[in-house]
Amino acid sequence: MSREYVYRGRILNLVLERDGNTTYELVEHGPAVMILAQTPQGVALVHQHRPAIGGDTLELPAGLVEPGETLLDAAQRELAEEVGLGARGWELLVSAYVSPGFCSEKLSVFRAWDLYESRRAPDPDEQMQVVYLSPAEALALIRSGEVETSAPTVIGLLLAQT
Amino acid sequence: MSREYVYRGRILNLVLERDGNTTYELVEHGPAVMILAQTPQGVALVHQHRPAIGGDTLELPAGLVEPGETLLDAAQRELAEEVGLGARGWELLVSAYVSPGFCSEKLSVFRAWDLYESRRAPDPDEQMQVVYLSPAEALALIRSGEVETSAPTVIGLLLAQT
Repeated sequence: MSREYVYRGRILNLVLERDGNTTYELVEHGPAVMILAQTPQGVALVHQHRPAIGGDTLELPAGLVEPGETLLDAAQRELAEEVGLGARGWELLVSAYVSPGFCSEKLSVFRAWDLYESRRAPDPDEQMQVVYLSPAEALALIRSGEVETSAPTVIGLLLAQT
Repeated sequence: MSREYVYRGRILNLVLERDGNTTYELVEHGPAVMILAQTPQGVALVHQHRPAIGGDTLELPAGLVEPGETLLDAAQRELAEEVGLGARGWELLVSAYVSPGFCSEKLSVFRAWDLYESRRAPDPDEQMQVVYLSPAEALALIRSGEVETSAPTVIGLLLAQT
């Protein structure tokens, strides 16, 4: 078995792994977090442009875990940066790989409760708008195809209904 | 805005997109499908080794859409290849991007019903074992961390409970 790095970058590396006659194209990618925050106005969702898909998405607030952060640190930072909320209660709901056929990114979905207003400070390269919807409203928009989203967002919204 | 292809491969391309001072590392990846097939013995799940994560996963049957296939064609082929089942009823439950921050892969989850035995023919480079569990059993294993899985599998299992 051999491993060749084709690219080493900022958020991902591309590796060709050869095992016998098979070559796997693998993306090394760090962990990520997503936050389900239910306010009296609905679940906090973020509308943003995503260059990778050439369009916009409506997603639960999410982001990459930075060096030295725990998963919870990252979830708290992202909820503050993207939505402007803090939370006194945190629970890890579920962790899953986003696409384990080629990529090592593992995403953890947290529930945040006992919320309070914090300072919003999105990344300068992120233009995002916060939207509050009930889980049922958001899922209806997603399932009808009216808005695009991420698989972890669907998990969060389904768990919000239970 | 400029786009530079760093790598063009079999299942993915790696592109650097520059927009002003920002460089995005983007992975172009084709669409995929996943199948929720509930039998009297439980939901059909596949236990397999995933080189990208250096470990095993328990996932709903899934795979990439091949050239010339519709999403439904691919779902029918994957259910036959990986599990050895055909189905007379098919419904698209939801489609979502697996990780739209960097990757264009969009995954569609189908429900298959009115199932019948078909011929199983896994890809030669895939060593997989089919396991039948109730959605609640599978979710408990996933949420406790006893097994690793994919985000779309969690969606399918949550929808199986509704």
